[in-house]
Order: sequence, then structure tokens, then C-alpha cells
Amino acid sequence: MSTTTTNPGPARGPIDHEVRDQVIVAATEHFRLYGYEKTTVSDLAKAIGFSKAYIYKFFESKQAIGELICANCLREVETDVRRAIDGVDRPPEKLRRMFKMAVESSLRLFFEDRKLYDIAASAATERWQAARSYEERIQAMLQDILRQGRETGEFERKTPLDEAAGAIYLVMRPYLNPLLLQYSLDHTDDAPAQLSSLVLRSLSP
Amino acid sequence: MSTTTTNPGPARGPIDHEVRDQVIVAATEHFRLYGYEKTTVSDLAKAIGFSKAYIYKFFESKQAIGELICANCLREVETDVRRAIDGVDRPPEKLRRMFKMAVESSLRLFFEDRKLYDIAASAATERWQAARSYEERIQAMLQDILRQGRETGEFERKTPLDEAAGAIYLVMRPYLNPLLLQYSLDHTDDAPAQLSSLVLRSLSP
Repeated sequence: MSTTTTNPGPARGPIDHEVRDQVIVAATEHFRLYGYEKTTVSDLAKAIGFSKAYIYKFFESKQAIGELICANCLREVETDVRRAIDGVDRPPEKLRRMFKMAVESSLRLFFEDRKLYDIAASAATERWQAARSYEERIQAMLQDILRQGRETGEFERKTPLDEAAGAIYLVMRPYLNPLLLQYSLDHTDDAPAQLSSLVLRSLSP
Repeated sequence: MSTTTTNPGPARGPIDHEVRDQVIVAATEHFRLYGYEKTTVSDLAKAIGFSKAYIYKFFESKQAIGELICANCLREVETDVRRAIDGVDRPPEKLRRMFKMAVESSLRLFFEDRKLYDIAASAATERWQAARSYEERIQAMLQDILRQGRETGEFERKTPLDEAAGAIYLVMRPYLNPLLLQYSLDHTDDAPAQLSSLVLRSLSP
């Protein structure tokens, strides 16, 4: 028993984890209310009731906190999309759902609550790791759907898989990337369906 | 002779036209150097050497001047695109060229000379008439190419023409609209070719 209490390694682990979570929850709420760009780590420390030095023990910068919040948001979009895809069988319908849900979920997260848009915009502008791995995961999802559709014979097989997935990703990008999405709000009602139809025509065997 | 000098109608016509042209040329140069947003009509008047009141005789607002400059710019892009299209025979190649040239020409006009981006961005944000009719003309060009490809049997005929053209326009939009283009600069080398290929696959009969 004395081993576990005196060994700082295993004991610190869960505590670190809890404090980090506490900072993230409080910071998400704070950014949601006051915006990411305008908030400093000092503001955040004051709001959370921790010292600035204490926060810096767990996060090396404001961006490190923003990155985690952003990763959580993008993970949420991804979960929504995955659930929408898993709800249907046929690859063409999966593709339609993927596009539709990605737009709906992004709009909800970044625009209903305009303050979180700030973080997403910084992530996209500065190409944070969170934004880059989100892009990669979306492209991987696309490749999976294409592979399934090729197996069922519903999609053509001539175009190299990564070429097809890359081009479809480019078609979706204006509705996934928050910087572009802000200028596409007039099109979010119709574009997903219109573009899904075009993409599906491009995939017909 | 006395008729022409005392009749303000016919005599004013050509003079108005010349003065307007003079203002436009000077204003284009001025905006190019100092940006559209920051320039006032007073700045412009001082720079051109006309009185503010005199400029207001010909243009009702700064935006009216901006609209004309913007219309000229977009007309230039359109001329480049039309020349590129006319240089080839086959509709699929016309489509590739159209996409490629529209991007190249927009990049040159709005980004090499970052100051003119200002005007284009205002035009797109506030949906000026110049921007709207440009969109319409680009869509009409797309419909023409589609119609030709349907006649030669190179494009499918099942999808309603306006639906097909509308969706292709949406695919091109991030590379035509300067607000979106500013966030797509990483993709301007490859996207036109990749997306043209996807679009052409969607059009195959």
C-alpha cells in the first residue's frame, strides 16, 4: 500500500487526468461565452479558479487547450457522421448520409454557437494537428464507403481508390472546413443533396 | 453649331462617358495601391484631382465605382475563360479548360494583386449585381458546354440540364468566389484537374 502512495508515477496519472479534464470543461464553457481569440490563459485561470502557473503545468499554451477542445468537437462531428452511416446498408445511401450529417453537425457545433467557430477557424487556418487528423479520418471513411460500393458492384472500379476519395473530399471540403462553410451558408440546405447526386453519378459503374 | 453647344443632351453624352472612364481608371489604380475598403470618395477625389462633388455627379457612391471596377475584372476572367474554351473542340476538354482558366485568371486578378481582392470580396459578401451576373454567365457557359456534349453523345442526357450545370457550378464555386478561393490556395494547383475528372466521370453516358 505504501508503494502506491509514495510512488509519484502511478498516483499522479489519474490526478493529472482529472485536472486536465477540469480545465478542458471550464475552458470550453469559457470560450463558448467569450470566444477563443480574445481569451488569455490569465482570463481562463481567473475564471476557473486555478493559478496561471498551475494551468501551465498541464498545458503548454492556450493553443494546447484549444487543440483539445477542437479535437473533442471534431470527434463529435465524426461520431454523428459514423452513426448516420452505420444506420444504412447501401454504400450510395451511406455517402449521401455522410455528406448531409457532416454539414448538419458542423453547422450545429460551429455556427449555432458562434463562439466555438473561433477555435475551429484557428484550427483550420493554422492547420492544427486536430484539424489535420480529422481530415484524414474523413478521407478514410470515404475510402471505406467506396471500397464497400466497389465490392457490391454499385460503384465503378476503374478510378484509383485514393484518387476518387481525394476528389470527393475536395467536393465536400467547402462544407466541412469552417472557414469555407461560413461563406457557404446560403447553400447548406441544397448543396449536400445536389453534390451527393453528382458524386454518385461519377461513381456509377 | 450653336444647337450642339447649347443642347446639353447629345453634347454631354460623350463627355460624361470620358469622365466616367477617367474616374474608373484612376480609381482602379488607387484601389490597387491602397485598397478599396480603406479608401473614401474624398481620398479618391484628392488623388484624381477632381472635386468630391464632381465625382458624385457621375457615381452615386463609392460602391458604384467599385461595382464598375469589379465588373471589369470579372469580365476579364470571363474573356480569359471564353478564349480558353474556344481554343478547343471537344466538350470534355472545354470543361477542363474552363475550370483551369477560371482559377488561374481569378488568382492572377485577385491575389497577385492583393488589393483588388478587397473589391472582389466586398462584391461577393454583399452580393453586388456584378458578382451575381458573373455567376449567371458562368452557369450559362456551363450549360452551353453540357448541351454541346449531349449533342455529340459525349455526355449523358438523363440528368436535367439545369440540375447538372447547377451541381457543377457548386463544385467550381470554391475556386471562383474570391472569399472561398482565399482558403483554397493550397489546392489551386491540383483541384481543378482532380475535380474536372470527377465531373467528367459524372457526365459519362
